[in-house]
Amino acid sequence: MTRPVRDLSRPTMPCSAVQARMAEETAARAAAAGPAPALPEDVGAEAGLRAELAEAVDSLAPELVALSRDLHAHPEVGYAEHHAVAAVAELLRAHGITPSVGVFGMDTALRAEIGTVAATDAAEHGESRDADEAQPPATAGSHVPTMAILAEYDALPGVGHGCGHNVMCANSVGAFLALAELERRRPGALPGRVILQTTPAEESDTAKEILAQRGMLDGVDAAIQTHAYAHDLADQTWLGVRRMSAVYTGIPSHASSQPFMGRNALDAATLVLTGLGLLRQQILPMDRVHAVVDDGGQVANVIPERAELNLMVRSKYPETLKDLVGRVEDLLRGAALMTGTGVEIITDANTNEMPVRSNAPLLQAWVRSQRERGRDPLPAGVVTETVAAGTDFGNVSLRVPGIHPLIKVTDRDDVALHTREMAAAAGSPTGDAAAVDGAYGLAAVALDWLHDAELRDAVRADFEAAGGAVDVAGFWEE
Amino acid sequence: MTRPVRDLSRPTMPCSAVQARMAEETAARAAAAGPAPALPEDVGAEAGLRAELAEAVDSLAPELVALSRDLHAHPEVGYAEHHAVAAVAELLRAHGITPSVGVFGMDTALRAEIGTVAATDAAEHGESRDADEAQPPATAGSHVPTMAILAEYDALPGVGHGCGHNVMCANSVGAFLALAELERRRPGALPGRVILQTTPAEESDTAKEILAQRGMLDGVDAAIQTHAYAHDLADQTWLGVRRMSAVYTGIPSHASSQPFMGRNALDAATLVLTGLGLLRQQILPMDRVHAVVDDGGQVANVIPERAELNLMVRSKYPETLKDLVGRVEDLLRGAALMTGTGVEIITDANTNEMPVRSNAPLLQAWVRSQRERGRDPLPAGVVTETVAAGTDFGNVSLRVPGIHPLIKVTDRDDVALHTREMAAAAGSPTGDAAAVDGAYGLAAVALDWLHDAELRDAVRADFEAAGGAVDVAGFWEE
Amino acid sequence: MTRPVRDLSRPTMPCSAVQARMAEETAARAAAAGPAPALPEDVGAEAGLRAELAEAVDSLAPELVALSRDLHAHPEVGYAEHHAVAAVAELLRAHGITPSVGVFGMDTALRAEIGTVAATDAAEHGESRDADEAQPPATAGSHVPTMAILAEYDALPGVGHGCGHNVMCANSVGAFLALAELERRRPGALPGRVILQTTPAEESDTAKEILAQRGMLDGVDAAIQTHAYAHDLADQTWLGVRRMSAVYTGIPSHASSQPFMGRNALDAATLVLTGLGLLRQQILPMDRVHAVVDDGGQVANVIPERAELNLMVRSKYPETLKDLVGRVEDLLRGAALMTGTGVEIITDANTNEMPVRSNAPLLQAWVRSQRERGRDPLPAGVVTETVAAGTDFGNVSLRVPGIHPLIKVTDRDDVALHTREMAAAAGSPTGDAAAVDGAYGLAAVALDWLHDAELRDAVRADFEAAGGAVDVAGFWEE
Amino acid sequence: MTRPVRDLSRPTMPCSAVQARMAEETAARAAAAGPAPALPEDVGAEAGLRAELAEAVDSLAPELVALSRDLHAHPEVGYAEHHAVAAVAELLRAHGITPSVGVFGMDTALRAEIGTVAATDAAEHGESRDADEAQPPATAGSHVPTMAILAEYDALPGVGHGCGHNVMCANSVGAFLALAELERRRPGALPGRVILQTTPAEESDTAKEILAQRGMLDGVDAAIQTHAYAHDLADQTWLGVRRMSAVYTGIPSHASSQPFMGRNALDAATLVLTGLGLLRQQILPMDRVHAVVDDGGQVANVIPERAELNLMVRSKYPETLKDLVGRVEDLLRGAALMTGTGVEIITDANTNEMPVRSNAPLLQAWVRSQRERGRDPLPAGVVTETVAAGTDFGNVSLRVPGIHPLIKVTDRDDVALHTREMAAAAGSPTGDAAAVDGAYGLAAVALDWLHDAELRDAVRADFEAAGGAVDVAGFWEE
Repeated sequence: MTRPVRDLSRPTMPCSAVQARMAEETAARAAAAGPAPALPEDVGAEAGLRAELAEAVDSLAPELVALSRDLHAHPEVGYAEHHAVAAVAELLRAHGITPSVGVFGMDTALRAEIGTVAATDAAEHGESRDADEAQPPATAGSHVPTMAILAEYDALPGVGHGCGHNVMCANSVGAFLALAELERRRPGALPGRVILQTTPAEESDTAKEILAQRGMLDGVDAAIQTHAYAHDLADQTWLGVRRMSAVYTGIPSHASSQPFMGRNALDAATLVLTGLGLLRQQILPMDRVHAVVDDGGQVANVIPERAELNLMVRSKYPETLKDLVGRVEDLLRGAALMTGTGVEIITDANTNEMPVRSNAPLLQAWVRSQRERGRDPLPAGVVTETVAAGTDFGNVSLRVPGIHPLIKVTDRDDVALHTREMAAAAGSPTGDAAAVDGAYGLAAVALDWLHDAELRDAVRADFEAAGGAVDVAGFWEE
Repeated sequence: MTRPVRDLSRPTMPCSAVQARMAEETAARAAAAGPAPALPEDVGAEAGLRAELAEAVDSLAPELVALSRDLHAHPEVGYAEHHAVAAVAELLRAHGITPSVGVFGMDTALRAEIGTVAATDAAEHGESRDADEAQPPATAGSHVPTMAILAEYDALPGVGHGCGHNVMCANSVGAFLALAELERRRPGALPGRVILQTTPAEESDTAKEILAQRGMLDGVDAAIQTHAYAHDLADQTWLGVRRMSAVYTGIPSHASSQPFMGRNALDAATLVLTGLGLLRQQILPMDRVHAVVDDGGQVANVIPERAELNLMVRSKYPETLKDLVGRVEDLLRGAALMTGTGVEIITDANTNEMPVRSNAPLLQAWVRSQRERGRDPLPAGVVTETVAAGTDFGNVSLRVPGIHPLIKVTDRDDVALHTREMAAAAGSPTGDAAAVDGAYGLAAVALDWLHDAELRDAVRADFEAAGGAVDVAGFWEE
Repeated sequence: MTRPVRDLSRPTMPCSAVQARMAEETAARAAAAGPAPALPEDVGAEAGLRAELAEAVDSLAPELVALSRDLHAHPEVGYAEHHAVAAVAELLRAHGITPSVGVFGMDTALRAEIGTVAATDAAEHGESRDADEAQPPATAGSHVPTMAILAEYDALPGVGHGCGHNVMCANSVGAFLALAELERRRPGALPGRVILQTTPAEESDTAKEILAQRGMLDGVDAAIQTHAYAHDLADQTWLGVRRMSAVYTGIPSHASSQPFMGRNALDAATLVLTGLGLLRQQILPMDRVHAVVDDGGQVANVIPERAELNLMVRSKYPETLKDLVGRVEDLLRGAALMTGTGVEIITDANTNEMPVRSNAPLLQAWVRSQRERGRDPLPAGVVTETVAAGTDFGNVSLRVPGIHPLIKVTDRDDVALHTREMAAAAGSPTGDAAAVDGAYGLAAVALDWLHDAELRDAVRADFEAAGGAVDVAGFWEE
Repeated sequence: MTRPVRDLSRPTMPCSAVQARMAEETAARAAAAGPAPALPEDVGAEAGLRAELAEAVDSLAPELVALSRDLHAHPEVGYAEHHAVAAVAELLRAHGITPSVGVFGMDTALRAEIGTVAATDAAEHGESRDADEAQPPATAGSHVPTMAILAEYDALPGVGHGCGHNVMCANSVGAFLALAELERRRPGALPGRVILQTTPAEESDTAKEILAQRGMLDGVDAAIQTHAYAHDLADQTWLGVRRMSAVYTGIPSHASSQPFMGRNALDAATLVLTGLGLLRQQILPMDRVHAVVDDGGQVANVIPERAELNLMVRSKYPETLKDLVGRVEDLLRGAALMTGTGVEIITDANTNEMPVRSNAPLLQAWVRSQRERGRDPLPAGVVTETVAAGTDFGNVSLRVPGIHPLIKVTDRDDVALHTREMAAAAGSPTGDAAAVDGAYGLAAVALDWLHDAELRDAVRADFEAAGGAVDVAGFWEE
């Protein structure tokens, strides 16, 4: 008790060893890890064809870098990516491809297709479809292998392209143009269909869920995209999330003269926050529940009639997410029961980000492609999964086989997403290099998949082994 | 923030002004209060008869003081009052009265009767009666007014007669003997029946509830007793109480390696204690809820499988007690819901102490009696009700009209119940004086009531106006 | 456990018995209470003079009711009482009295004086005075007895005159005009000085504290005013209050990927609310601490960097208020210590409302005056003090002897302050009657006090016995 | 809100997917991981010598299995390993080695030495040494490489050898005897010194810390032992731990009549548990803080004067452990500050378990040895570190280079430590096989190290690179 109490006017600092130790461990795991698995030479597209594809990418490189820099210079938040969608559309048209802009009822969603058979007119995608409608086969017995390349291009308020979506957009658009250029140079090189689909508002909404419910993945066999990062990383954990609000209703009363006539909504919020703290001991180490108080009462001398919490519940697997959300809902309701208040739990109409399920054979194609570019993606597990966040690509990956590999856009491995440092990197030469290398990567994955029926079977088998298609749209219905 | 933090090795002291201010206010209220209402001269027994009664009491005084001192010297806890019951029985027999000992299945419960009609043989009280059994009239159409004088004589572990039950016992036994003596001196002076009933275990149980269910009040029209205190006080608030235990069941797991497989019963207890704290803002100022943790887990490295709380819920009125208990039960269940644990709420089979309902006309008789002894009981409200505790006389007072006035046993008004200081006073000359004065008081109340049919009607009417008989035994059934 | 859980979508209702029981008890206490003490006939001003005063009041009645109704029709919140101050000034001028408007640096503070000696020019009150400056005697050895009548006239946002300040203003202005009229009719009837001082912003600020620090009470011997209510009540508990904000500073971090790098300011707020709940078991039953969360974090996926609580701490006595505030400050700082956050505790520069200390002899004069008007103010304690609130008159009452009696403005005793029902009553005939009766009351109290040196001595002695003048301005300095 | 509330009489079950998913991921990581690094053929002892060592082990196998089974049949808790120490001593004597029993002041600690130089008489170890005393070199300039093989043999109350210490003891004793046998068969085969040191009470105390402070590691260059497990695992995270008690002192008072005179010690415990819950969001994902309430008050109607919590604080690194303990101590003290109670924080005089630091070259020797036995230890990271617990071998590993590899004693990989299932496995044929294979492993590690000066240098360099020797005994001094 003789130790004096610290200065209480400022917070304590996190232990300086934490980041150093984590970096050391990442380095040690990287050193210890075997190389990430890659496709063997005899699988996928032939080496010669891949070399031609690489040439096509390199010929496009100036335009891809220009696109990445253009987007970087014009950051736009979710659903406001008007400059971006116009830039992509213009670039496609410059290469003779006519995109549909504003598909699926989203102004900034663009869609284009190439390949041997393009049975579906992109224009029809403008019509909203019922989420529950069974997906019609293109034509029975005549399905054309179809790969979707998804592209994000929204930015963060205040931070600009701190998530590197400008690079990612160049990857996807570049892959699509490179495949088109390959087909142009060598007709028949694309034995199937490739779709470019831009997806707005990854940061601020779960737009891919909406697009998927409206038909974005109809007839699509697999979907791929990259994500910018501080490491080349074949795979990483992405947590599913459920966003919730809880509104408690009490009975107001004069806090001095008649508190006993009141029911205190803020008490319920206090118990929720306490209960969430206690709950954290009994959840998986990588799972998360966090909350803020949006309404904590109006004036101190009135017992609060209303309190509102905003929560996010995250978990690594669909089933543990559902389980954890159920526990949190019980917690929210229990707090009402404890305080004599009423509670309304408000959730999004659409399913929020789901965990990402990565497809192993497609990842192996990606790893092979990146080694050809002089990159060596780290296998899963090298970067601790405890730093996981979420992405609406998860909702795609539980509907069709997909990958979401991370590509390094900076030379400093301590740069975190959503920071100004990451934004700077995404607009620098290291970001430019990633723009081109990632374009080749996605294109090569698509090419490998289109050229090898056994690979396609393996992709499908891996997807089925992991549980097959999940009813994401109906996930939260009991 | 420059103020240094206090020495954290010891608790802070309560503000010294608190007790001083409360004493000042009590004095001010006592000064301001009109005198407590007393029976007018023309009501109750005639003055001459009361004077004879006083003589009878005075003749008994040495024996009453001896009884009080004997009990004080031999403190016995609840249900072990063997010395006390023998002493009372011996004293009764010395006066020619044969008591029944061990009535209603309680070894230390004694019963004796006097009066013009004593239709019921005390021996029959040894048989347990069904609580729900309708109370049989003595004889249809011939009910004899019957007053019960109740006597407590149990002590506190460690503190002895810190609640002054030795004085109270002398009051009740003395009143009974004085009435018998009056009847002996002046046959016919008791136009009715008077019962002396000792009631064990007031401190440690709710024995009067059990006795009442077994027939103690069958045929009884009113019941009276005193309580020792630091003031002469006609009336005071006594809170009802519900004793509860809550046992939470979790799932044990290794707290370091697999906490996520556990459900933490101690978490529920933590939420209960937090919730009770918050609840206290929304209950009546004189109501109380307090709790301790009887089982808070076994070892730190195992997620606790079991936790147990022991609670007391107190309120001033039967209906607010029931309401508050319902809120606490919701709170206990909500804590289980919040933590994924199971809960068992355990309550006593018998109703615990109920609030005391005082009968105004009987109180007025008491006040008149005490003024005759040179005492001036303060009216209700002079001593703040926020210091209230509980007594099982409450359960009696909701079945038949009753009073439970406080008699001063010490010259110091800052002596609290359940202290060694109160024990010392109860065995001192001030306690002796109270033993005699209180005996006169209870006897006079009984005499007034027996002699004045209008007073009996007024007593009954006051009881009915306050809600009449309450189904105490069935109070907690839905 | 078989009892089903209640509907969790709405709060539970307070037990219906609570208000009924409280009303019953108030009625019972009123019935039991002796009459409130009143001045005997031979104390204070002579009966004949008081009768002349009553005539003066009655002659003013139409103007007083008109003033009350005018203010009621034009409710103005604190510091914006421009219509009100003009109305009062106009009425004074109509009676030949020139008030100073905008005194002590407050636009809506008005001051006027009458009496045999008016040594101080009201104009000088416009200058701010140092609070610590010793109060200069008017002239050594020649102090003129000086009574201040204070007048409030601010309203509540949204509820208008739900606190009845319109009636109270008519009371004070009416008393002042009646005394002036009496002096006019019978020169020399005022053997001293009477000041009318309007005091803005009682609801929204502690304006009387500011006015007192600037000289409002310089040379004043006693200060009086009324308050509107649902009962005629000589006296009631008014709690002191300390308003506080606590701002916690944490360290923000990504709540999903790096929560361990953060310090959570909302955690501190959660512990504060929990700690306040627990604290409530260990404070006096009529004391209060209540809080709301003004800032509970911005977005759920960022560990909150900032949290802010707004608190009110109330206690019945100056010393227990200081003690309780110290305990709350320790609690606020302990929450920072527990969470690794920083805390800033923000308090008002000026002392907030202090408890009201009522002067017994002045109250007796008030009671006598009201009985003359057919009213019978209840003594203190009839209405439970647990319904207490606060007023900045407390700060006056600890500097000079004062009273703040409650006058009934409605026929329904269940109408609470700060409600629309109270506002309606304040603008109704019952409010009008109170406007006139209260004017007589305040005037009579002043007259009694001016005419009876022994009464003045008694007033002073009562004030000194209660602790004398308190250094309110410096109260919160250590 | 229409979803009915679950049955509140029993806890919810953990999500069934959790264990399945974790097992899947472990399998996937095992499949993906490169093989654990092993010593190349040209490092350490020559292959021929290792083959002779294996023969020696095999010749001892029946005796080792018998020892393992004997201990398994006679489980003894910490410091009561009398049967075990006698069994080991007897076996050593049967092989011509005279052990010292009761060394370092511990009755059940045994020590024996073999090798070319055994300068120190084991008898001297019976004397306690000052922990701060500099470790004297055997003889300046003539240090003999010295390897200590540590052996645990205590069991768990109720569960017997649920931690498999019987197998581990056979490993260590077997390795020691095999090396002695090798030296006997081929004199000079041990170019250094080997110590067998049994270490009591791993489960119930931090005995190795006490032994180390008393000289167990004086002159020792490296120390090794195994641990039983459900996998062959080269390395795993072991958390450091600090055991703490916090005793809060309040002021008792009657919970009904005078709670405001009390200070509630249980309130502090409630805030601690709440604060720990909130703290868990802001600590590293693999760190742990857990607590139980050992004293939560005595009776509900007395404000608790005393409350006691028992806590364990765990972290992965020495510096983060110290940081976290500091945060928890602040939390404990802040709870006293918040509640007006006093707090005493009680910690062990000796440092508790420290994190284990594994020595990479020694681990490689272990892996090579196990491959020779047909086992293939998984590399670190395959089994998630979030299941980590603690061991007092950590305190050894921060003083000298050491390893603590896990050896599989069961065919079922879902058997957890400290369970009856693990106890059964430890006494089954799979446990017997581990007893022999582990004995070879430890012997081979020692042999490799003694025969290869470059390996010894690498071992030392790896130790120094990880921070060198830590002042464990003085770790908690400021």
